[in-house]
Amino acid sequence: MASIVDIRCAVVPIASAISNAYIDFSKMTASVVALISDIQCDGRPVIGYGFNSNGRYAPDGLLRERFIPRLQGHDFNGIIDPEPAWTSMMSNEKPGGHGERSTAVGVLDMALWDLAAKLEDKPLYQLIADKWRDGQVDDSVFVYAAGGYYHPGKDLSALKAEMQSYRDRGYRVCKMKIGNSLEEDIPRIEAALEVVGAGQNLAVDANGRFDLDTAIAYAEAMKQYDLFWYEEAGDPLDYDLQRQLADHYDGPMATGENLFSHQDARNLLRYGGMRPDRDWLQIDCALSYGLVEYKRILDLLPEYGFTNRNCIPHGGHQMSLNIAAGLGLGGNESYPDVFAPFGGFSDETPVEDSQVGLHQCTGVGFEEKQNLISTLRAATET
Amino acid sequence: MASIVDIRCAVVPIASAISNAYIDFSKMTASVVALISDIQCDGRPVIGYGFNSNGRYAPDGLLRERFIPRLQGHDFNGIIDPEPAWTSMMSNEKPGGHGERSTAVGVLDMALWDLAAKLEDKPLYQLIADKWRDGQVDDSVFVYAAGGYYHPGKDLSALKAEMQSYRDRGYRVCKMKIGNSLEEDIPRIEAALEVVGAGQNLAVDANGRFDLDTAIAYAEAMKQYDLFWYEEAGDPLDYDLQRQLADHYDGPMATGENLFSHQDARNLLRYGGMRPDRDWLQIDCALSYGLVEYKRILDLLPEYGFTNRNCIPHGGHQMSLNIAAGLGLGGNESYPDVFAPFGGFSDETPVEDSQVGLHQCTGVGFEEKQNLISTLRAATET
Repeated sequence: MASIVDIRCAVVPIASAISNAYIDFSKMTASVVALISDIQCDGRPVIGYGFNSNGRYAPDGLLRERFIPRLQGHDFNGIIDPEPAWTSMMSNEKPGGHGERSTAVGVLDMALWDLAAKLEDKPLYQLIADKWRDGQVDDSVFVYAAGGYYHPGKDLSALKAEMQSYRDRGYRVCKMKIGNSLEEDIPRIEAALEVVGAGQNLAVDANGRFDLDTAIAYAEAMKQYDLFWYEEAGDPLDYDLQRQLADHYDGPMATGENLFSHQDARNLLRYGGMRPDRDWLQIDCALSYGLVEYKRILDLLPEYGFTNRNCIPHGGHQMSLNIAAGLGLGGNESYPDVFAPFGGFSDETPVEDSQVGLHQCTGVGFEEKQNLISTLRAATET
Repeated sequence: MASIVDIRCAVVPIASAISNAYIDFSKMTASVVALISDIQCDGRPVIGYGFNSNGRYAPDGLLRERFIPRLQGHDFNGIIDPEPAWTSMMSNEKPGGHGERSTAVGVLDMALWDLAAKLEDKPLYQLIADKWRDGQVDDSVFVYAAGGYYHPGKDLSALKAEMQSYRDRGYRVCKMKIGNSLEEDIPRIEAALEVVGAGQNLAVDANGRFDLDTAIAYAEAMKQYDLFWYEEAGDPLDYDLQRQLADHYDGPMATGENLFSHQDARNLLRYGGMRPDRDWLQIDCALSYGLVEYKRILDLLPEYGFTNRNCIPHGGHQMSLNIAAGLGLGGNESYPDVFAPFGGFSDETPVEDSQVGLHQCTGVGFEEKQNLISTLRAATET
């Protein structure tokens, strides 16, 4: 029998000077929550932590105005089970309009799963695998290094040095931003390829900036490189653009990081022309109502010919790493140089050949990542 | 030359004991903002007011954390023009995820248009018509009475009395909620029809609760009544449900109040099987980034065979009434008994045969609606 005796909530800056083709990150923030239980372990309360993934701002007002009060009103009945808690958090919310609140619920969902796994004395990936996959866990998970941002004054040699540093840290596959212009980007792509070698070691990400004509122009210009993937060419809700683009690009494509519900994901599967034999789905549970909703998305996949292996979530956080290992996803993003300390994995599991191993501590694994657990504790004074 | 010297923001309860098939409204709130200009009129500063439409909660945190600060940072250059201000408010926001922030921007957009029209000394509908319709204004606008909510202890005679009271107040067309069960709803529909007479005087609204089978069962049961419309049968993002339902229901259908961007509206037009010769689009500018974005939605319509006359926005507020008159929409919602004082129109323009006339004061018309302007002024101490 456990209960949550206190919920703390804070905002932490994760600003950086980088930008993609759509936004800059100079004012980016993240919410951090701590769910403090009445169970003690080694003289400290067992605490579940959560935070939101990068790219969307800290949903501080939403957490305080609606979602934390509803979670406080939820009757756990002695068992920390994220699924009924989710239903309570979403009570009296109308359907549709999946943004912002999906981030707030994602933060609390992460903390609930962290706490639930700690109380069961298991790493979260094991709890997930026991619940939904007969206990089977992938020993390691594919990860790629996301970077290659636009940055004031950053030239080709700086981009190459960045890519080399990812390679030196064990990443075979690296990702870079595109979208400013073909004139600027083709030399950038070719510079990155000089470092990473094969096109299959390089992914490119347009962050939803292109109209169809521009997306096709990039497709035509890039098809010669045999890239690992071409990501989010057009607006995330312009499924028809994605579908038409597939007529012009045979290589793998990826999208979904800006879809925040199973209804939106289903529309991508219905209308986006995504190809199960090569394309990738990037929905990020920490921006889209958490694992409770993400599992609904995974459950949709077979109807459209996809499997969990088609999923490589956005976000580069440990929550998705646990899901990847526990449910057999295709991999996980990683940001070796940005969004610290929220990005990255256990201090004990270096990346080798774009594979990362798993933490051994209970929960999501925060306690094996020193800079992160320090930040979570300091922000919530726990 | 005008500038905004202060922005004030408050939260006002609009709670009521009603419920639809999806949520209850016991904790519903609205944000109110006041944009205080440096221009004086009759010894008072000219002020633009805005608020959010019902059904979504006050976006107080979002306004304070992101959108008011960005508006404060916008360089108006002496001219209160909502369109460039909108671009500033949406700077560094990623694409997709249209919910919550769309409400926050809608609140500020309403206040900007109110202020812009007041500074041009025009009713907003005239400013809109001058800008986009060669000055042509509809003298009156079709309105229908939205009510018929589920309410603890409400029986058929209470429902009939409610419908009669709308008729007595000049509404030919009335709307009621459905969705609890056919067994409960068919007697309710027939009771309402006893009061309103023809089926063309009654609309029904399921608030997105049905799966396809239930939506079809309701369609089969209701087709005999020749209703004014069958609204939001399924999840607002389940366009395929809407498309399939049209194979089972020849009468008019309506949806869109839970779509909050032109991208989402475009997907409804692309995939929802909506029929321009009979169906209705209900997107509500005050929940979907305001008039600046709503105009983008209207501009999409011709490509899909629709016109502005297919639009009868959700929300029952004066902002949409101005748009309806200035851009020739098909009408506007009205809530005679709920969401006061935010619902309803000028005190000087009673409803007759489901048509309402237009205010004569400058701006959105708040100053001709005493209970509303009092609330707006008190909440923002202006």
